[in-house]
Amino acid sequence: MKSELWIEERHQDFFATRYRVERTLFCEQSDYQEVLVVESKGYGRMLFNDGLVMVSEKDEFIYHEMIAHVPLYLHPHPQRVLVIGGGDGGTVREVARHPSVGHCTLVEIDEVVVRASKEFLPSMSCGFDNPKVEVIIGDGVKFVKETQETFDVIIIDSTDPIGPSEPLFGAAFYSTVDQALSPGGIVVAQGESPFLEPEIQSDLHKTLSKQFRWATFYNYTNLTYPGGLWSFAYASRDIHPATDSYRQEVKKRGLSHRFYNADVHRGAFLLPELMKKYAL
Amino acid sequence: MKSELWIEERHQDFFATRYRVERTLFCEQSDYQEVLVVESKGYGRMLFNDGLVMVSEKDEFIYHEMIAHVPLYLHPHPQRVLVIGGGDGGTVREVARHPSVGHCTLVEIDEVVVRASKEFLPSMSCGFDNPKVEVIIGDGVKFVKETQETFDVIIIDSTDPIGPSEPLFGAAFYSTVDQALSPGGIVVAQGESPFLEPEIQSDLHKTLSKQFRWATFYNYTNLTYPGGLWSFAYASRDIHPATDSYRQEVKKRGLSHRFYNADVHRGAFLLPELMKKYAL
Repeated sequence: MKSELWIEERHQDFFATRYRVERTLFCEQSDYQEVLVVESKGYGRMLFNDGLVMVSEKDEFIYHEMIAHVPLYLHPHPQRVLVIGGGDGGTVREVARHPSVGHCTLVEIDEVVVRASKEFLPSMSCGFDNPKVEVIIGDGVKFVKETQETFDVIIIDSTDPIGPSEPLFGAAFYSTVDQALSPGGIVVAQGESPFLEPEIQSDLHKTLSKQFRWATFYNYTNLTYPGGLWSFAYASRDIHPATDSYRQEVKKRGLSHRFYNADVHRGAFLLPELMKKYAL
Repeated sequence: MKSELWIEERHQDFFATRYRVERTLFCEQSDYQEVLVVESKGYGRMLFNDGLVMVSEKDEFIYHEMIAHVPLYLHPHPQRVLVIGGGDGGTVREVARHPSVGHCTLVEIDEVVVRASKEFLPSMSCGFDNPKVEVIIGDGVKFVKETQETFDVIIIDSTDPIGPSEPLFGAAFYSTVDQALSPGGIVVAQGESPFLEPEIQSDLHKTLSKQFRWATFYNYTNLTYPGGLWSFAYASRDIHPATDSYRQEVKKRGLSHRFYNADVHRGAFLLPELMKKYAL
């Protein structure tokens, strides 16, 4: 009988997901977290930070298309984009495809994630090869606080609010994000799960609502995040997410997508009853 | 150290989900499948048929509200409803709440599922107590073929197309379903996952498209079905699912829901790019 290798992700103490592993490609303890890349049997290569699935090659397009294209099509002419986190490169890969984008800055705190991705996740880290993309290894909170630049879209592509990502969910951070946005700017952030982390979501919504006129969530689901329904937070002083102009932008810019389209963009903001308090 | 009991659901040979179990409440091999009810640590009581999660007390409202309320609000005046499968009772519980429904027939092939649910899943099997609901233990395929009655809405609340549910995915069955529908009737069916079972979905869509003018899918996601995105099939000769009249019906009928609302109803039909071929 042939041995089988499985990796398990635990959620609280009562739920777990397991993936069959062919082999480990990369494992290093960074200053912030354990960074692990495995070759899985069913989902291609997978990146785990501290034992939690970040991305799999099979389904990463859902997360990256939804975090990038929703704000980029809602902005009529995004030129300068900032991504905090997202060290695998998948988000900037999608951002840089928009023709109006001239410069995309990525600030990732953990160089080990970027290095692991460059070596073992080429379908995502190819995003770094685009000459529009500048990669800065550093603290995103500090960068946003100190930058003199402004951005049309800021994307917080963070892990859960434990460890290095914790300050990325706070009011102090979003006050500086607001200052770093151009007029008409949009911020989008990894917004957790309404089932598994309702309190984090509720707190994040309160924080964003104080700072921005429009604050809500939009939903997606992928193969590898536990509990099905996951959300991105959306906030802007100026742009309501149900303006229909993004439909024209989708046509005009002519990009192809695997998950995103104007319909799913609209549907993502149509929240179920249990998230009704976040609806605009 | 205290021992831990876990139950595992395997998907193909490379992905598994595990739930921590407090104790087993019911386990019986029926003529069709192994029927198991456990008390889980995080998701309340859970029903497994042949090792696959059917429902959990924690998230069953999503599945049952979405399979029942979408067709029932799209029909302007549903009076007679047929449910095939759904032996836990959750679907008829939701169906019977609609004031216009006078009679709801449930045909479940496996009496063991009904018995297990009546004893151990009262929050779902309470649906059987409603005097509008008639429970028939029998073969749904045979029932639909032989019935002289017609129904305004037919709901196929089936397991995967292996074992007893296999004929419920075929063209012969849907031809008889069509004959058992009243004019203006709607059929909705458990429609599998676009990621995990794309071929079943594609075949089902072909079958429905041949028989009905309008055939598509609408999506949902819950905590316990693997792979995040799951679908219901929708078909009707007469009623396009994007007619906005359901919004008035939702207001008029005045029911409360935990997941369903008119927004999420609309959003569920807005399909991602990878399901574009099913969009109307």
